[in-house]
Amino acid sequence: MSRKPPPPPAAVLVIDVLNDLAFPGGEKVVPWAHKMAARLKPFLARARAAGFPVIYVNDNYDHWRSDHGEIYRYCTRKGARGRAVVRKLKPRRDDYFIVKPKHSGFFGTSLQPLLQHLGARRLILTGMATNLCVFFTAHDAHMHEYDLYALSDCCAAESDFDHDTALDQLKRFCGVTVMRSDEVDFEAETPAAPEEKDKRRGEAAGKPEKATNAR
Amino acid sequence: MSRKPPPPPAAVLVIDVLNDLAFPGGEKVVPWAHKMAARLKPFLARARAAGFPVIYVNDNYDHWRSDHGEIYRYCTRKGARGRAVVRKLKPRRDDYFIVKPKHSGFFGTSLQPLLQHLGARRLILTGMATNLCVFFTAHDAHMHEYDLYALSDCCAAESDFDHDTALDQLKRFCGVTVMRSDEVDFEAETPAAPEEKDKRRGEAAGKPEKATNAR
Amino acid sequence: MSRKPPPPPAAVLVIDVLNDLAFPGGEKVVPWAHKMAARLKPFLARARAAGFPVIYVNDNYDHWRSDHGEIYRYCTRKGARGRAVVRKLKPRRDDYFIVKPKHSGFFGTSLQPLLQHLGARRLILTGMATNLCVFFTAHDAHMHEYDLYALSDCCAAESDFDHDTALDQLKRFCGVTVMRSDEVDFEAETPAAPEEKDKRRGEAAGKPEKATNAR
Amino acid sequence: MSRKPPPPPAAVLVIDVLNDLAFPGGEKVVPWAHKMAARLKPFLARARAAGFPVIYVNDNYDHWRSDHGEIYRYCTRKGARGRAVVRKLKPRRDDYFIVKPKHSGFFGTSLQPLLQHLGARRLILTGMATNLCVFFTAHDAHMHEYDLYALSDCCAAESDFDHDTALDQLKRFCGVTVMRSDEVDFEAETPAAPEEKDKRRGEAAGKPEKATNAR
Repeated sequence: MSRKPPPPPAAVLVIDVLNDLAFPGGEKVVPWAHKMAARLKPFLARARAAGFPVIYVNDNYDHWRSDHGEIYRYCTRKGARGRAVVRKLKPRRDDYFIVKPKHSGFFGTSLQPLLQHLGARRLILTGMATNLCVFFTAHDAHMHEYDLYALSDCCAAESDFDHDTALDQLKRFCGVTVMRSDEVDFEAETPAAPEEKDKRRGEAAGKPEKATNAR
Repeated sequence: MSRKPPPPPAAVLVIDVLNDLAFPGGEKVVPWAHKMAARLKPFLARARAAGFPVIYVNDNYDHWRSDHGEIYRYCTRKGARGRAVVRKLKPRRDDYFIVKPKHSGFFGTSLQPLLQHLGARRLILTGMATNLCVFFTAHDAHMHEYDLYALSDCCAAESDFDHDTALDQLKRFCGVTVMRSDEVDFEAETPAAPEEKDKRRGEAAGKPEKATNAR
Repeated sequence: MSRKPPPPPAAVLVIDVLNDLAFPGGEKVVPWAHKMAARLKPFLARARAAGFPVIYVNDNYDHWRSDHGEIYRYCTRKGARGRAVVRKLKPRRDDYFIVKPKHSGFFGTSLQPLLQHLGARRLILTGMATNLCVFFTAHDAHMHEYDLYALSDCCAAESDFDHDTALDQLKRFCGVTVMRSDEVDFEAETPAAPEEKDKRRGEAAGKPEKATNAR
Repeated sequence: MSRKPPPPPAAVLVIDVLNDLAFPGGEKVVPWAHKMAARLKPFLARARAAGFPVIYVNDNYDHWRSDHGEIYRYCTRKGARGRAVVRKLKPRRDDYFIVKPKHSGFFGTSLQPLLQHLGARRLILTGMATNLCVFFTAHDAHMHEYDLYALSDCCAAESDFDHDTALDQLKRFCGVTVMRSDEVDFEAETPAAPEEKDKRRGEAAGKPEKATNAR
């Protein structure tokens, strides 16, 4: 009989994969982004199938409208460098979506309240760029005292140097465990989930009054 | 010749008007919400015409998807108490939209970075409920040292007592000027606006590379 | 045999009791502050004896030096209205101390990281003024999803109206349980405490190297 | 006649120099910390003489008491590795002091409200370690849209690699200008300063009532 406590509930963060790669140096990220997408797509499928929340955390591209459809259309516009990658990694209907205005997914967003709502204390980090938005989101998550995992094959950067240095710093100073996507054993994990059934479901069935914050 | 410095650039906050009013006590808010909408609709039209940013700051109704269309549809569903009010106050294409998970519009949102992006230091507060989301958003704005105005005829609450007490507390302790919507002179104000042209416009015209945070 | 889970670990917040009461209206608070101190002093003694962390959360009086001694001296200066109250409620060596620059104890402070460090999820609120710093700290704590208690006899305000209205709003909208100090049963509560032994204690005994954030 | 606007008011951040260097790898920082102190001490003297606010932003060493004297004593205890450096860089009576619980100076602190109080929009970064607390404080400052300068000879890290990589990343991605301390021309800068005279001064002279947040 094991006395080891179960791992805290986990969620998957998918950082800036809706990305037109139109920034300076973005052309160097393209091949790495394709490799990342090839691994990330099946990983997300496994996560969803096992009941783990998948949370897209994505730049707002100066839209400030809280509309992920608009961001998706913008990043898949004709000629956008990231188009094929973005299409491959299109968010699903049941994924969560957080729009961020800056590098870190915790800055000016509801990521922290969402994770609290879900009860998640363990985060699996994926996306790009490894040394920027993934890195700074990981660091903020570390300050918030989450248990952290970064998937080396589901992240992408401009160069091996940027990618490797970032993962190395996260290991050394932010308590991040770096692993490959095929090393994640969803059977051994507990998915994060809101305590009460998602309230939207009650809608059709003549949902009773509930206390919201919309007052 | 006046030596008085011009007022700081202003923005209009529209708080929780996409609202199904399905919370306990919501039925008492209904008549006040209708009165509010009758004043708020023309006020927003004046603000937009004068070039002032209109920022919807709205509860997420536990959707956590950063999708204001979904929230609009939810609050205008058949039988929703707030349906008529919500339809009257539907956000326009050029309005900003901030989804909030809790009472205050500053908690877990990008309202503060958006206001910084716009250069707004003066906020005109409208919406409901006066004593809850308007009140707590005003208080957070006060701690962030914004110049604050609340429009008594463009806010609504469950009762006169709740409405009046809240406005009175904001006056006494948060430096809020309380006025009616017809007292706002947009000619004498400066609209907040991002320093550089909104970047979305460049999209169709073969926009050049820019530095985003989506890395 | 009870299946009820134990209450989450608790901490006591003591808000703005180092107070010169030199604000407009402060003279009206004086008699209430004396009544509060008469109840709060023995309550804090009970809390400390039972091992519960006592956290002073106090205005910085524009000192911005992170020095609670300086704030204590300032508020007990000759002629300060609050002098007797402040002396009565002087922080003890083992109490925590958070300096805040604005109304809410969570705004621009390390209260949230401290509570996370302590593992506290249940807060007992005391101090003044009931309708300002206690009220807004309670509201922020509610948005952070703490379990909340306010002690009516250990809070003070300018008037019964301000005091009662604030407590009533906290009950109605922020899930706060309002009770008297003699109703708190420390035997039935679990004190919050850092998981690892407080690291300062190791100091004299040739403390080994530890990972801090001071790099 | 120049039409160029004056630079925004500046403040100096001194990060984690009250440091016992007792973390793993701290012994490697020691020689660099001595070099840093040799440059930083005269730089701070110049800054103070020119009227620029000097803000110590320092780890709390798990004290959580908001007491910088206690931290100073702790880091200069007998046998502490950083003792000589800390003594050399002792804060002065008119310096500001922010205690931080985590890497970034903005996380769980009043640094942002203090900078707003001072009107500072331009920050000169010094301290250690270059790749940790300096780096992450710089990044948060960048997300808050400050104008940023880092002084290469007034920062220290474990190795040249850590130091240089961090400064390079700050240049590439956070808009930080990297320079040496002797390149800072205080004559050409505007010191940040609170709009109203510091209120403490009024104390002795029978200061009138003022509105504080301590209610």
